[in-house]
Amino acid sequence: MIKVVIIGSGNVAQHLFNEFYTNELVVVLQVAGRNPDTLKPFAKKVAVTTDLHQMAEADIYIIAVNDDSIQAVSESISSKNAIVVHTSGSMPMNLLSNHEYFGVFYPLQTLSENREVNLRETPICLEANTSMALQQLEVLATSISNHVYKVDSEQRGKLHLAAVFVNNFTNHLYHIGYRICQENNLDFEMLIPLIRETSQKIDSVSPNEAQTGPARRGDQGTIAAHLDQLDNSDYKAIYSVLSKSIQNIYGKEL
Amino acid sequence: MIKVVIIGSGNVAQHLFNEFYTNELVVVLQVAGRNPDTLKPFAKKVAVTTDLHQMAEADIYIIAVNDDSIQAVSESISSKNAIVVHTSGSMPMNLLSNHEYFGVFYPLQTLSENREVNLRETPICLEANTSMALQQLEVLATSISNHVYKVDSEQRGKLHLAAVFVNNFTNHLYHIGYRICQENNLDFEMLIPLIRETSQKIDSVSPNEAQTGPARRGDQGTIAAHLDQLDNSDYKAIYSVLSKSIQNIYGKEL
Repeated sequence: MIKVVIIGSGNVAQHLFNEFYTNELVVVLQVAGRNPDTLKPFAKKVAVTTDLHQMAEADIYIIAVNDDSIQAVSESISSKNAIVVHTSGSMPMNLLSNHEYFGVFYPLQTLSENREVNLRETPICLEANTSMALQQLEVLATSISNHVYKVDSEQRGKLHLAAVFVNNFTNHLYHIGYRICQENNLDFEMLIPLIRETSQKIDSVSPNEAQTGPARRGDQGTIAAHLDQLDNSDYKAIYSVLSKSIQNIYGKEL
Repeated sequence: MIKVVIIGSGNVAQHLFNEFYTNELVVVLQVAGRNPDTLKPFAKKVAVTTDLHQMAEADIYIIAVNDDSIQAVSESISSKNAIVVHTSGSMPMNLLSNHEYFGVFYPLQTLSENREVNLRETPICLEANTSMALQQLEVLATSISNHVYKVDSEQRGKLHLAAVFVNNFTNHLYHIGYRICQENNLDFEMLIPLIRETSQKIDSVSPNEAQTGPARRGDQGTIAAHLDQLDNSDYKAIYSVLSKSIQNIYGKEL
């Protein structure tokens, strides 16, 4: 049994807790966090503490707090032989180098409260400062996911950057589509099959091959008409730079 | 039986043909197009012609050609009592007003060669110049789709604009994610579960509520670090305008 303490009570902490809690290979000894209110849901199932200097002795400490708080939390962990990891996409592993064994346990997924995600299909990106620590993290990760990767800090930063494009920015494009529908008495539901197909198409063709639309065809008339229809200056700028970027790739082919 | 002639041999023509060909309510009399090569796949199953002045007498003529050619094709149709429709998202219905009965039959989906799409789940947006013509188009549309909407030309233009954001531009963001992975020896497969979840999340929460990421949190440090990592000036511009647009929405909340 791997003994784990989770520090944090946000979305990542919750999803990891739920997986480990029902996992026969892992025992969550404790969940620690500064805010007693957000610890309440955990308190029904496991020991909790708001005093980061009173944490149980574990094999692995998982710091699942926001990026700015990782270092402070790390400094409050005094255990000598444990592995201390954070779960951040963008922070380097060396933030934890005050410990003898340290690493990163980064689930590459958008995790929200009240929304279940299949962690078995979620890539978990691991990094550790020793091969023994890496091995132990691998045991932990494969107990909840079928997709475990060794990814160094620099690569992880790039993955996180790529994730901002395909997740955060894509969601904002959905929002713009939603607003355009709303302003024109159209049901956003009408766009859902298109959104679904766009995300599924790249299973069989690369995004490069899947590209379609006015910018792909170099259809300046439609591009100008669309820009003219957009009142919101941010949406106009987004339309322009994305069309320009697409045309810079495909323009030569036309 | 509704007698249909399809003019065009591209992706939309192919998908509509495949649906109508196996549909008991519809008979496709002919597929017409200028290019004999692209008509070949149809010729195995149905009469074809490259002479647009030799088209069969049908109830409905479906013009599924690129936007710039719609008017010229429309003028070559001489039938008096038939309904003439185009399938374009962005062109007004009145382009076809040289006919007595005319309208639009717009499937709101990204249709590619060699990729099957469930048209039953695809919204079909209809418009017609008379209620009788609209009724007949409704019979045709409901024979292949469960989601048939009456959408006027202005709304359809807005839907098409929204579709460019959620489909064409989203796909370009996937492409940027793909390139970042490629340049850093990372498997693009790692991003697929995230892409899938991002597109599915909006079934249960609005894109506005689903928004996450550095710009949503107003995390200037990560935004600056990401911009610094992007060499491609188009990608940098895309990162900037999308982050600015997100911050303009959520900034006041912080």
